[in-house]
Amino acid sequence: MIDIDALKAGQPRALAKAITLVESKKLEHRAQAQALLEKVLPDTGKSIRIGITGIPGVGKSTFIEAFGLYLVEQGKKVAVLAVDPSSPIAGGSILGDKTRMELLSRSNDAFIRPSPSEGSLGGVALKTRETMLLCEAAGYDVILVETVGVGQSEYEVASMVDFFMVLMLPNAGDELQGIKKGIMELADALVINKADGESMNLAKQTQRHYQNAMHLLRHTSFWTPQVLSCSAIKNQNIDAVWGMISDFQVDATKNGALQEKRSRQAREWMNKLLHEMLEMKLKENPQVREQLPILRDKVTEGLTTPYIAANTLIDLLFATDQ
Amino acid sequence: MIDIDALKAGQPRALAKAITLVESKKLEHRAQAQALLEKVLPDTGKSIRIGITGIPGVGKSTFIEAFGLYLVEQGKKVAVLAVDPSSPIAGGSILGDKTRMELLSRSNDAFIRPSPSEGSLGGVALKTRETMLLCEAAGYDVILVETVGVGQSEYEVASMVDFFMVLMLPNAGDELQGIKKGIMELADALVINKADGESMNLAKQTQRHYQNAMHLLRHTSFWTPQVLSCSAIKNQNIDAVWGMISDFQVDATKNGALQEKRSRQAREWMNKLLHEMLEMKLKENPQVREQLPILRDKVTEGLTTPYIAANTLIDLLFATDQ
Repeated sequence: MIDIDALKAGQPRALAKAITLVESKKLEHRAQAQALLEKVLPDTGKSIRIGITGIPGVGKSTFIEAFGLYLVEQGKKVAVLAVDPSSPIAGGSILGDKTRMELLSRSNDAFIRPSPSEGSLGGVALKTRETMLLCEAAGYDVILVETVGVGQSEYEVASMVDFFMVLMLPNAGDELQGIKKGIMELADALVINKADGESMNLAKQTQRHYQNAMHLLRHTSFWTPQVLSCSAIKNQNIDAVWGMISDFQVDATKNGALQEKRSRQAREWMNKLLHEMLEMKLKENPQVREQLPILRDKVTEGLTTPYIAANTLIDLLFATDQ
Repeated sequence: MIDIDALKAGQPRALAKAITLVESKKLEHRAQAQALLEKVLPDTGKSIRIGITGIPGVGKSTFIEAFGLYLVEQGKKVAVLAVDPSSPIAGGSILGDKTRMELLSRSNDAFIRPSPSEGSLGGVALKTRETMLLCEAAGYDVILVETVGVGQSEYEVASMVDFFMVLMLPNAGDELQGIKKGIMELADALVINKADGESMNLAKQTQRHYQNAMHLLRHTSFWTPQVLSCSAIKNQNIDAVWGMISDFQVDATKNGALQEKRSRQAREWMNKLLHEMLEMKLKENPQVREQLPILRDKVTEGLTTPYIAANTLIDLLFATDQ
C-alpha cells in the first residue's frame, strides 16, 4: 500500500512507489491507483507544468539540468518527467536519464522519473498525466515534461502542460530544425540553445527570424509567444527563461487563463479516453475479435455491406460484454 | 414491400421505393433495407461511379445535364445522386434538382434523386452509398454523385466513387476557385467549365496553370490526374470528359486498381461506421446521458480525474445497454 502521508510530505520513496502503482498495467493496480489519485486530488494543481521538446542534439538534457539546478537554487522543488513513445532509441536515452542529469539527480529538491516503458490505454500520456498529479501532491513546484518528439508526443505533451517550450538550434530555417507542422502554433516560447561562442551571431539572427515568424501566426491565448536564446552549457540566460515563464504564470493565474486551459485540457482528455476505452472494448471482446477479420474479408469481397458488418460487430459487443 | 424483380428490371418506381426505404430513419425499415441490400448485392458493382464537385456558379447542373444527355445518347443508363449536408441553402437547390436538369429528367434512361433531407448514422453519405448500390442493381451504368462541397462532403464523395472530378471556372488561382486544402490531391480530374466565347483564352491559361500544378502533387494511384476544359452550355468537349473517364475505367479494371480501390473504400467505411455506432451507443444510453454532464463538470472543476470519469461512463454503458 502507498503511504499517503509520506507522499504528501514529499518523501521521494513514497512518490516513486505511487508512480509505479500508476504505471502498472495490472487491473487491480489500476483500481488502487485511481483510489489513490482521488485521495490526493485536492492537493494537486499548485505547480507550473512546463513542456519541453526539441530535436536530438538540441541539448535538452543539458538545458533541463541547468534549468532545474537554477530553480532549485531559487528554492523550488523540481520534478522531471518524460513522455516518449516506446522505441529502442527512446528507451536508450531514457535509461540514461539520471546519468544525463547527474548534478540535478543528486539534489534533494529534484525528482527525475524516466518515461514509463510502455503505454497501454491512453498511451504513456495517461501515466505521465497522473504522475504529474502525484508530483504535485508531493509538493513539487515545477514539473518539467520532456519529450524527444517522436510521433504524436509533442501534441500530447502540449495538451497536458501550462506552458509549452520548443528548444532550437542556432540555425535559421524550419526544415533544419526538424519542426513538425503545427508545433509552432502550440509553442508558448521558442528557446534557442547553444547561443554561445562562435554561434552567438547565428543564434541572434535565428532569434530575430523566429520573432518575425511568430508574429505571423495567429495566437488564441492572451499570451504572445516569446523567442529567447540561452546557453545551457555556459549557464547563460537561464534566468531569463524562468523570468518569462514566471511572468506567464502570474498573468495567466490572475486573468483566469491558466484555470481555463487546465479545465479544457481535462475535458478533452476525458473525451479522448472515452473513445480509446470504447475502441479497447471492441479490441478485447473475444467474439468481436473472432468475427472482425471474417466480416472485413466479406466486406472486401463485396459479399456484405460495411453497414451490415459494422452492425453485426456492435451487436456482438453489447450482447456479450458485461 | 419492395418488388426486387421490378427493381432488377430497372423500373424507376421500384427503385424510388427502395431508395425511400434505405433513407428511412425508422428502425424496422433499417432492418428491411439491409435485408434488401444483401439480396441485391450480387447485382451491384457494375457501374462506373463518378463524383462531381465545384463551387456554386461553376455550372454543375448544366454540366451534369449535358454530360448525362451525352451518356444517354451513347446508350448508357445514368443515375444522378446528391450528397449534401442538411442546410437551408443546400435544401433549396436540391428541391429544384429536377427543374435544374429538365431535359435529363425527362429521359427514360436517366434517374435523378435529390439528396436525403437529413442524415442520421453515417450522415447522408451512408444513404448515398446504399442508394448507389440500388441504382447499380437496377442496371444503371453510370452513377454521378454530386456535391455542393459544404463541410466534409467532398471527402465523403471522393471516398465512395471510382473517379472524382472537380469542376472549375476559367480563372487561374486556387483562392478564387474556393478549393479546399486536400481536394486537389483527391481529384482524378479537373474540368474547367465555361470554356467558351470570351473566356476561352482564360480557360486555356487556367488549364495550363493546373496542368503544371497537378504535376507537382504526389499521386499514389497509377492514374495521372488530367486537366480538361469544356463548355457545358455550348455542349463542347463533353465527349472528351467521357473519353477520359472511359479510359480510366478500362485501365483501372484491367490492372485491378478499381477493385482494389472499392475494397479499400468499403473497409474504411466499415471502420468509420463502427466508430460512429459506438459513439451513438454512448449518446443514446440514458444513464450515460444523465451522468455525462455531471462528470464533465467534476472534471472541469478538478473534482475527479478524466480517467475516472471516462471509466465510470464506460461501465454505465456496458452495465445497462443490452
